Amino acid sequence: MCGIVGITDAGGVSFPIYYALYALQHRGQESAGITTFDGMNLYKHKAQGLVAEVFDAGILDELKGNSGVGHVRYPTTGAKIPENIQPFYFTFKNRKFAIAHNGNLTNTWQLKEEYESRGQIFCTTTDTEIIGNIIADELTHSSSIQDAVLACMKKLEGSYSVALLVDDTIYAFRDPLGIRPLCFGKLNDGYIVCSESVAIDALNGEFLRDVRPGELIKINSEGITCTQVAESSGYSHCIFEYIYFARADSVIDGKLVYNVRRRIGQSLHLEAPVKSDIISPVPDSGIAHATGYSESSGIPYREGLIKNRYIGRTFIMPDQKARENAVRIKLNPVKGHIENKSVVLVDDSIVRGTTARRIIDIVRDAGAKEIHMRVGSPPIKAPCYLGVDMATRKELIASTRSQEEVCKHIGATSLHHVSIDSLIKATGLPPEDLCIGCLTGTYPIKIGEEKACPRCITYKSGTYQSALKEFD
Amino acid sequence: MCGIVGITDAGGVSFPIYYALYALQHRGQESAGITTFDGMNLYKHKAQGLVAEVFDAGILDELKGNSGVGHVRYPTTGAKIPENIQPFYFTFKNRKFAIAHNGNLTNTWQLKEEYESRGQIFCTTTDTEIIGNIIADELTHSSSIQDAVLACMKKLEGSYSVALLVDDTIYAFRDPLGIRPLCFGKLNDGYIVCSESVAIDALNGEFLRDVRPGELIKINSEGITCTQVAESSGYSHCIFEYIYFARADSVIDGKLVYNVRRRIGQSLHLEAPVKSDIISPVPDSGIAHATGYSESSGIPYREGLIKNRYIGRTFIMPDQKARENAVRIKLNPVKGHIENKSVVLVDDSIVRGTTARRIIDIVRDAGAKEIHMRVGSPPIKAPCYLGVDMATRKELIASTRSQEEVCKHIGATSLHHVSIDSLIKATGLPPEDLCIGCLTGTYPIKIGEEKACPRCITYKSGTYQSALKEFD
Amino acid sequence: MCGIVGITDAGGVSFPIYYALYALQHRGQESAGITTFDGMNLYKHKAQGLVAEVFDAGILDELKGNSGVGHVRYPTTGAKIPENIQPFYFTFKNRKFAIAHNGNLTNTWQLKEEYESRGQIFCTTTDTEIIGNIIADELTHSSSIQDAVLACMKKLEGSYSVALLVDDTIYAFRDPLGIRPLCFGKLNDGYIVCSESVAIDALNGEFLRDVRPGELIKINSEGITCTQVAESSGYSHCIFEYIYFARADSVIDGKLVYNVRRRIGQSLHLEAPVKSDIISPVPDSGIAHATGYSESSGIPYREGLIKNRYIGRTFIMPDQKARENAVRIKLNPVKGHIENKSVVLVDDSIVRGTTARRIIDIVRDAGAKEIHMRVGSPPIKAPCYLGVDMATRKELIASTRSQEEVCKHIGATSLHHVSIDSLIKATGLPPEDLCIGCLTGTYPIKIGEEKACPRCITYKSGTYQSALKEFD
Amino acid sequence: MCGIVGITDAGGVSFPIYYALYALQHRGQESAGITTFDGMNLYKHKAQGLVAEVFDAGILDELKGNSGVGHVRYPTTGAKIPENIQPFYFTFKNRKFAIAHNGNLTNTWQLKEEYESRGQIFCTTTDTEIIGNIIADELTHSSSIQDAVLACMKKLEGSYSVALLVDDTIYAFRDPLGIRPLCFGKLNDGYIVCSESVAIDALNGEFLRDVRPGELIKINSEGITCTQVAESSGYSHCIFEYIYFARADSVIDGKLVYNVRRRIGQSLHLEAPVKSDIISPVPDSGIAHATGYSESSGIPYREGLIKNRYIGRTFIMPDQKARENAVRIKLNPVKGHIENKSVVLVDDSIVRGTTARRIIDIVRDAGAKEIHMRVGSPPIKAPCYLGVDMATRKELIASTRSQEEVCKHIGATSLHHVSIDSLIKATGLPPEDLCIGCLTGTYPIKIGEEKACPRCITYKSGTYQSALKEFD
Repeated sequence: MCGIVGITDAGGVSFPIYYALYALQHRGQESAGITTFDGMNLYKHKAQGLVAEVFDAGILDELKGNSGVGHVRYPTTGAKIPENIQPFYFTFKNRKFAIAHNGNLTNTWQLKEEYESRGQIFCTTTDTEIIGNIIADELTHSSSIQDAVLACMKKLEGSYSVALLVDDTIYAFRDPLGIRPLCFGKLNDGYIVCSESVAIDALNGEFLRDVRPGELIKINSEGITCTQVAESSGYSHCIFEYIYFARADSVIDGKLVYNVRRRIGQSLHLEAPVKSDIISPVPDSGIAHATGYSESSGIPYREGLIKNRYIGRTFIMPDQKARENAVRIKLNPVKGHIENKSVVLVDDSIVRGTTARRIIDIVRDAGAKEIHMRVGSPPIKAPCYLGVDMATRKELIASTRSQEEVCKHIGATSLHHVSIDSLIKATGLPPEDLCIGCLTGTYPIKIGEEKACPRCITYKSGTYQSALKEFD
Repeated sequence: MCGIVGITDAGGVSFPIYYALYALQHRGQESAGITTFDGMNLYKHKAQGLVAEVFDAGILDELKGNSGVGHVRYPTTGAKIPENIQPFYFTFKNRKFAIAHNGNLTNTWQLKEEYESRGQIFCTTTDTEIIGNIIADELTHSSSIQDAVLACMKKLEGSYSVALLVDDTIYAFRDPLGIRPLCFGKLNDGYIVCSESVAIDALNGEFLRDVRPGELIKINSEGITCTQVAESSGYSHCIFEYIYFARADSVIDGKLVYNVRRRIGQSLHLEAPVKSDIISPVPDSGIAHATGYSESSGIPYREGLIKNRYIGRTFIMPDQKARENAVRIKLNPVKGHIENKSVVLVDDSIVRGTTARRIIDIVRDAGAKEIHMRVGSPPIKAPCYLGVDMATRKELIASTRSQEEVCKHIGATSLHHVSIDSLIKATGLPPEDLCIGCLTGTYPIKIGEEKACPRCITYKSGTYQSALKEFD
Repeated sequence: MCGIVGITDAGGVSFPIYYALYALQHRGQESAGITTFDGMNLYKHKAQGLVAEVFDAGILDELKGNSGVGHVRYPTTGAKIPENIQPFYFTFKNRKFAIAHNGNLTNTWQLKEEYESRGQIFCTTTDTEIIGNIIADELTHSSSIQDAVLACMKKLEGSYSVALLVDDTIYAFRDPLGIRPLCFGKLNDGYIVCSESVAIDALNGEFLRDVRPGELIKINSEGITCTQVAESSGYSHCIFEYIYFARADSVIDGKLVYNVRRRIGQSLHLEAPVKSDIISPVPDSGIAHATGYSESSGIPYREGLIKNRYIGRTFIMPDQKARENAVRIKLNPVKGHIENKSVVLVDDSIVRGTTARRIIDIVRDAGAKEIHMRVGSPPIKAPCYLGVDMATRKELIASTRSQEEVCKHIGATSLHHVSIDSLIKATGLPPEDLCIGCLTGTYPIKIGEEKACPRCITYKSGTYQSALKEFD
Repeated sequence: MCGIVGITDAGGVSFPIYYALYALQHRGQESAGITTFDGMNLYKHKAQGLVAEVFDAGILDELKGNSGVGHVRYPTTGAKIPENIQPFYFTFKNRKFAIAHNGNLTNTWQLKEEYESRGQIFCTTTDTEIIGNIIADELTHSSSIQDAVLACMKKLEGSYSVALLVDDTIYAFRDPLGIRPLCFGKLNDGYIVCSESVAIDALNGEFLRDVRPGELIKINSEGITCTQVAESSGYSHCIFEYIYFARADSVIDGKLVYNVRRRIGQSLHLEAPVKSDIISPVPDSGIAHATGYSESSGIPYREGLIKNRYIGRTFIMPDQKARENAVRIKLNPVKGHIENKSVVLVDDSIVRGTTARRIIDIVRDAGAKEIHMRVGSPPIKAPCYLGVDMATRKELIASTRSQEEVCKHIGATSLHHVSIDSLIKATGLPPEDLCIGCLTGTYPIKIGEEKACPRCITYKSGTYQSALKEFD
């Protein structure tokens, strides 16, 4: 998962992109990058680390120009390779290009093979470079970026929200299923396109609307034009953006994420009520869901766990033998809220179950009589091939275990996952507009029985082998 | 304000001190330091920055030994001077000393003069060095550290919680008024003394009790001994520890801070009820108070502002002309929760009023119909001379303005501060056990008309001139 | 100018490459990089800075494998672009490539155009990437790297010494004119190919011989094979390697550089004897020449200027108004050697004349009666298109001024440049084996009236416009 | 060994001190510091590392004021303790002090005991702090810094050259034996006092004269005054300053160091002539001596070893098993100068013999027929108690071995040390004006049978136990 942004502004773009990326930091903490264009040159800076670590005022001052793109990247194994940090930039026929991409192509391997057969070399191991290649290739027989983007979209399979800088113009486009979010807004003296609306808020801009599936947005100093370049049979919003990934204060495709989560919390109460003393979130991911449960049940919302806010990238976690202490150092139980109490603990999801078990241990040690776990997503049973880096199937605790087994494994008094129906209802979207592949194993794109990629990922359902970092 | 910790443990102390300081990080983000003793040598490391920035595993590995002290320091102008970073260490007659101090002496100036008249030079501009000097001076005619500490306490005026390392032994003592917190607990293979109980929690230790005013705790490999060395006429707990400074999950002198704040929130509702749509905290400082208000009123608790969690020390804040955006980048209004709503906004305190005004601006821009500000402390009318770095008197918005004027200044629909009576009641402590000098101008220690110190602080009430950073 | 190295060694190559690059550090101080291969993956690290700054033991430990290439880069404007730091690496049909290149192609522009017309994008602005492109393109219709290298050499024009890593094998080749040096040797458990013999010395290896113009050396765990792949009509050794660029203790194409320089010094004496008190080098570049002059003349060699050895990359040079002090801080005159003396000052070359003038000022200020400047190269009259980053033609002091004018400009009592004839004789090589284009404007390769490159360099003689850093 | 500087200049002093310290960098590479005063405050910065690493332009800009002192420190174990880095600063009775000290007191232990008995604590383990203590103590009964310095000098034993900043005035004084160098000069708009004349040269200042033994120099905005405060029975110049420590281009107490070394080289030839092919220095320490030998003998001076100039503090030396390669990586033999030749190798001194042996190995491996070692100092037989950190007596190769045994140990064909008589003659100074304790074991100050200091150094001759770094 990643966050992207593209901005044109007559007053310079490096600082606005910085603040926008900062607002999108939750979409990727592994690395960050900005590329700008000043009419002559590309200026670029990217490195591992948080936005606030990668950039300083001196660096931003040197990123000159009135158009640019930025990117934050989710921690994956691949990202440790510095050349993979985005934006990806290149030159072609005296034009400067930079690409920021969020999503996951499912036919990268075939595309690379096709271009290598023509002598093309690859400097990175990212999907992003192949997008650049296809566009350049199209431009050898057409000078229209728009045509090239359309031709490119015809070749790409999978999810992609892209901000493409070509000299002083930003071309932003979203895959025909609209899997990953992308929206745009008006700034003081320009425009912004970005993964989530919170980036527009951070710049005090005016949210205009979401980019439509298959749509191409072109922004530069002359203004903005929107073209439906690819046919789209409708949305397949990623359900996990609503459950966990997006910021609660984002509005994605018309829905305030916080409200979706609060409604999920309400459903959790209605589906599995329990007589308890307090409703406590697992901070921060379960807060919105927990307020919903509390409102619906009338049981007081009270923080049973306080999160230490100073954990940084360089914090030294306790080693193996003291691993159980690791969670304790991040989350401190509030004994006075928990002791001799029946506690409903609300979190957004359970992936491997390890963290859930440790948190429940802590809450029990602090004296809770009962711990009722309520989870804001149905059991996750299948991997995501479209951009969320979940565990492999065999590590997904719900892929092979019943709810009772999971409850026992994590040590809860009771466990309830929200139902798929209630979840869909909470989004307020029609079921056919959602991708819920991770819950059902059925995806909006044909995946599986594909040719195996020897490098990193085998796209065969059931044997998915990811080198990507897990997030449980 | 600062946080201190002293640990003896047969298994080494650098990592435990690191985790304890991390739990106390909220008490000081400017600098951090650890000094340990291994039977032969002092090992020491201290620098500007957060605990996680100042130390890494390699540094902690080199801080050898089974006893040590640590310190985190609140950002003050003085702390930019590297020699002022604590612990302060020195040698005296072949013994190694290290001191970590939280508090503020009110007779530093007179003490320095006395010692300088005997030829003593000062390497720092801290209170801490003078404590070291007094103890060393006493040790010239007695070899008992306990006697030296008692003699020292007789000379010191003001607030001080101290962890003193003398070779392999930690001597911890608290001023006779018990102004700053200090408690101790049992670890696996040793003992811990620290500013707040959360540091004991972080190490999965057993909280024993608070250090009493005027008490001296001695811990080393032989165990722990407690001696009432100085007479105490009773407690003068700093009220601001309960209002703002301490962590909500700390238990200070028997009171869970979270509950004190929640009860303040309840009083806020009872004292100044308002018919509104939602109760929203100003995150994070108003959360506990807001849950109390919500519970008491039955009006839903809903986050109207979402805090970006990735602000770090190196984050570049927008410059002057865009200063109003600074708050927006840290706090994003959740329009869907606020628009066309009547909002009760709860925060812990108002110092200068600048931040409050900006937050209210944001909430109004997001469409709130009414904004009722509820504040968890009475108006702050006087400076603190005992360790909390508030603004100078003339900058305290409530020192010269009525509540109505403040309400107008910050732009709220209505404003209510909790009353002193309700505040005291919320702590559950007798009024005489609290220092509420910042609310009344009456302190438990005589201050004012003192000889002026030309260096940093004039201890004359009404003309208090602090070089210290303000925290509004 | 740059330095390259390729090593295969059964005991790991990162540390040997590090020491070899360190021995070649004089060939490039701007950036450094190493890429290794361990049978599966490429490991790579590169950054701006000196070899000792770019790498540490931890980084070298992670550069696994028994084959690898390394590069040091001369400071040029282009190198501030991080993606231009070498080695350049890419993947092609599941094979891993890394290229380290020393030299300058003269037909880069045409080659880029050719490949762009087929849809190829360029990630860097280096010559090196085009070499990779050509080789990959050739490999689409042949699986022989050797054939691909030969086809590549047929396309390239200009100077190039290349170390190409393809999986576990190093292919090293030198342009058919042998302009830049390249040699190879035997290590304990492998082989090394490198720019200068001093890198072999540093590893205590056995020098085998120079790579021949047009020759391809292949080294891997199976040993070494040498193939004359391209026709060569003979050598065109760069004269400036002997005059200045190479280390004095290198043996290039059979000649010890120190001796070449010493013989130049002898010729300087024979061509322009002068009755003086001491012979002093300009350190360090004039030392070898000065010892030759001293031996030939019998006048004592004495250091009239002492160089401060601690100048590092971060040293702050005095600013503009005190610029004349800059040289003084690096070079201190030894008054006792100079005062009231007639001094012969020997340096290797004069490019712009600025430094020479400042040094002569210092020596005169220190009391020298006469200052006779003797220069180890003939006047530099034309730019180098083949890899030495000299000033542009109009900045070359000798391009438009007579020797008398230069002498007056720099303020010397007398000035003499070694003659071209003596210089050639000093090398011990036949005149036809040398490229002396910078002295005559006549190059071994057709340059000029080429299509203009809008990006960085116009290859039109007389209008050469370089963005490259000057080294006077 | 260390370097010190004090500057007053109406145009600001931080940059001049920086350049002066840079010129004195050879006297200490372990750490560096500058303290300045602007009429109100002390500004200070100090850290481990070279001058160019410790400071940057931003830091120097913040070191405000027109008077200041600076220090560079020789690598010793003690210096790893950050508080020991100089200048040492303190406040006393509202005055600001900073001290930079070069030398070694021999009665530190007794002085510390005396002051501790009065309750004085010590923040560092340096001699420097005790100097500050004594001066402060004297100022309790006199307001004259001059009187305090005189009283201080009466208490101190050993060697000391001190630059003391008291508010805006610099007091510089030298011990009554003048063991360590100290001189002063005139700058554009102020004065400089410094360890060696090269620092004056670097600022293009005018050398005035050396500070006399027992003399006190006072400089501030009003000018300079010189007072002979302590009686002096004459000089005891450290002979090792001339042999090795000082820069060749320094003039110390009237003697150009380069010429002293050249004359030593001439004596080496006259005392031990040998028919050889070349005279080669061990760079850089033997260069001046070697030119003297070459001139006297008429045998050509030729560099047989080339030193790699890029060794920095972060360079990774080969590990133990490859230790013999360590010297090779720093010093490359010039085979063409050595092979089948008889070589006279000239160095300044032999301490442990390890380095000499490795260098001779390298030269022999490069094919030298004969290697005649000529050494610019007599055998070092005793430790230095007065500021040069030599090896302990038992590690001094010459303390227990005859010249023949040393020759055999290092593997030379022949070995000759210059005689004490010739050495003294080369300095041009009367024998009684030199401290040659390290050559004879007889010191100008009573040392030995002193009370043992348990901390670092036992001042008993023959059992000297130093924790200090060796420099062979």
